[in-house]
Amino acid sequence: MEKFLIFGHKSPDTDSIASSIAMEYIKKQMNEDAKAYRLGEINNETKYALDYFKFNVPELLENVTSDDHVILVDHNEFTQSANGIEEACIDMVIDHHRIYNFQTSAPLFYMAEPVGCTCTILYELCIMNNITLTREIAGLMLSAIISDTLLFKSPTCTVKDEKVANELAKIANVDINTYGLELLKAGTDLSSYSAKELINIDSKLVSINNVNIQIAQVNTVDINDVLKNKSEIEDAMNLEIKNNNLGLFMFLITDILNCNSQVIALGNRCDVVEKSYNVTLENNSAFLEGVVSRKKQVIPIISENI
Amino acid sequence: MEKFLIFGHKSPDTDSIASSIAMEYIKKQMNEDAKAYRLGEINNETKYALDYFKFNVPELLENVTSDDHVILVDHNEFTQSANGIEEACIDMVIDHHRIYNFQTSAPLFYMAEPVGCTCTILYELCIMNNITLTREIAGLMLSAIISDTLLFKSPTCTVKDEKVANELAKIANVDINTYGLELLKAGTDLSSYSAKELINIDSKLVSINNVNIQIAQVNTVDINDVLKNKSEIEDAMNLEIKNNNLGLFMFLITDILNCNSQVIALGNRCDVVEKSYNVTLENNSAFLEGVVSRKKQVIPIISENI
Repeated sequence: MEKFLIFGHKSPDTDSIASSIAMEYIKKQMNEDAKAYRLGEINNETKYALDYFKFNVPELLENVTSDDHVILVDHNEFTQSANGIEEACIDMVIDHHRIYNFQTSAPLFYMAEPVGCTCTILYELCIMNNITLTREIAGLMLSAIISDTLLFKSPTCTVKDEKVANELAKIANVDINTYGLELLKAGTDLSSYSAKELINIDSKLVSINNVNIQIAQVNTVDINDVLKNKSEIEDAMNLEIKNNNLGLFMFLITDILNCNSQVIALGNRCDVVEKSYNVTLENNSAFLEGVVSRKKQVIPIISENI
Repeated sequence: MEKFLIFGHKSPDTDSIASSIAMEYIKKQMNEDAKAYRLGEINNETKYALDYFKFNVPELLENVTSDDHVILVDHNEFTQSANGIEEACIDMVIDHHRIYNFQTSAPLFYMAEPVGCTCTILYELCIMNNITLTREIAGLMLSAIISDTLLFKSPTCTVKDEKVANELAKIANVDINTYGLELLKAGTDLSSYSAKELINIDSKLVSINNVNIQIAQVNTVDINDVLKNKSEIEDAMNLEIKNNNLGLFMFLITDILNCNSQVIALGNRCDVVEKSYNVTLENNSAFLEGVVSRKKQVIPIISENI
């Protein structure tokens, strides 16, 4: 049995998968036993990065128990973590989100920075510990930064993310813009997903003032192409609202070329969306100019207006 | 107005004060405006360290507001922090405790390690940022490590604490054992304290399973000398129990030479102490063999038995 179980959040994105694999690499370089897992299906963008840099898809993890020593990457909130996380021994967290719905019974190693991507912090951890990166690990970490920052265009992107990405690109021996656009474009191929899968590709559950809110997001180069299936998407959203007792479900369709989003909002607290963005929902939907980041442009804004 | 307000926990110990001053120094070296504060009266040990290395006592801080940007050192739990902390913008935390009763609305810089002292982590932060320490700052940080680890004898002490202390001692140009014993001895001079002050020198309030528990600790070289005032101490403890709706108040009198503690326990949940340490309280008191660390040998044990 491995000593540390490493995983990112549910509905894993490229950063959650890349951070888990990079953390396994780092721990092994430090002669510690560790294994990367995933908490759900990987998306097409992540699949592209794993294939490109020749990594296997990490094994699926369903539950953790009080016997497990775990390392959380790219998240800390228990609602976004593995089932049973309250009982597990959390030894490390590497993250770039707010701290919320999180607690431990013992001191731990916690490294967080308000940067665009967990892999940016992991790169610093490598520098601190004199760990050399292989071309493959560097390329995977670079993919995570490109993904989380939408190729440096998201408001979450910092100078540090861009600087680290450039260092990683040198080691990975790829051109950031060429590879970056290919990677992001791979993530916009939504043709293989059912409506139910679509709303779970990148989905986060948050609880604000006792209101359960699910915020899902997909990237596209053509918003209207996604809206063709609006009715099926709404049916799938309404099912989640019923099953998970949600007050609000926001589904963001993000145009990665023009950096805007169309939102579909359902639930009895849709007033929060209208108030937050000063919009009127028409057929449950509205255009959100310039909104691309759930972390910077959705969660804090709706938190203020709930 | 300074940009960042820096402070450690209520009932400040040497680490809380030294970490605040060291963090102010670090921020200033990085050309950022910051000021160290304290959340309560300093103890005789801290006074000795400040005098020895020629620092002023930091200004007292009563409250923080939503306009304040703050840096927490040596704590994270809101119950141990400044009044109004829920509203303030927490930009940074440097700590070595479990994460509990803590949350933020935005991403932040959080650096925690399961080491004996916050100043050990701050030393690493200096190395990461190429910050050179003065003799005085190094001496103050060394004092914090000596204090928190009882000169490396506490079970909370790690290899890293001892290594960093040796580096700091070189810069501060002091002999660790000679200076360390003088420092710890200064902290055992309890003659100037009233019973009410005594139970507040180093006191932490924790909430476990909705039971409010206060755990105070004093260092001594003679347990019986402190027990001379047992009746007044118990009166002061009972007043705190009434005022703060405590289920349990534990007052630990720690013999720093022999590394044991005598506990006085009051409140309607004294059963937890008896169960945790397999002792019978006689006249509200019991001898706890080998117990010196609230963090490692009290909080986790009583948490399990409540």
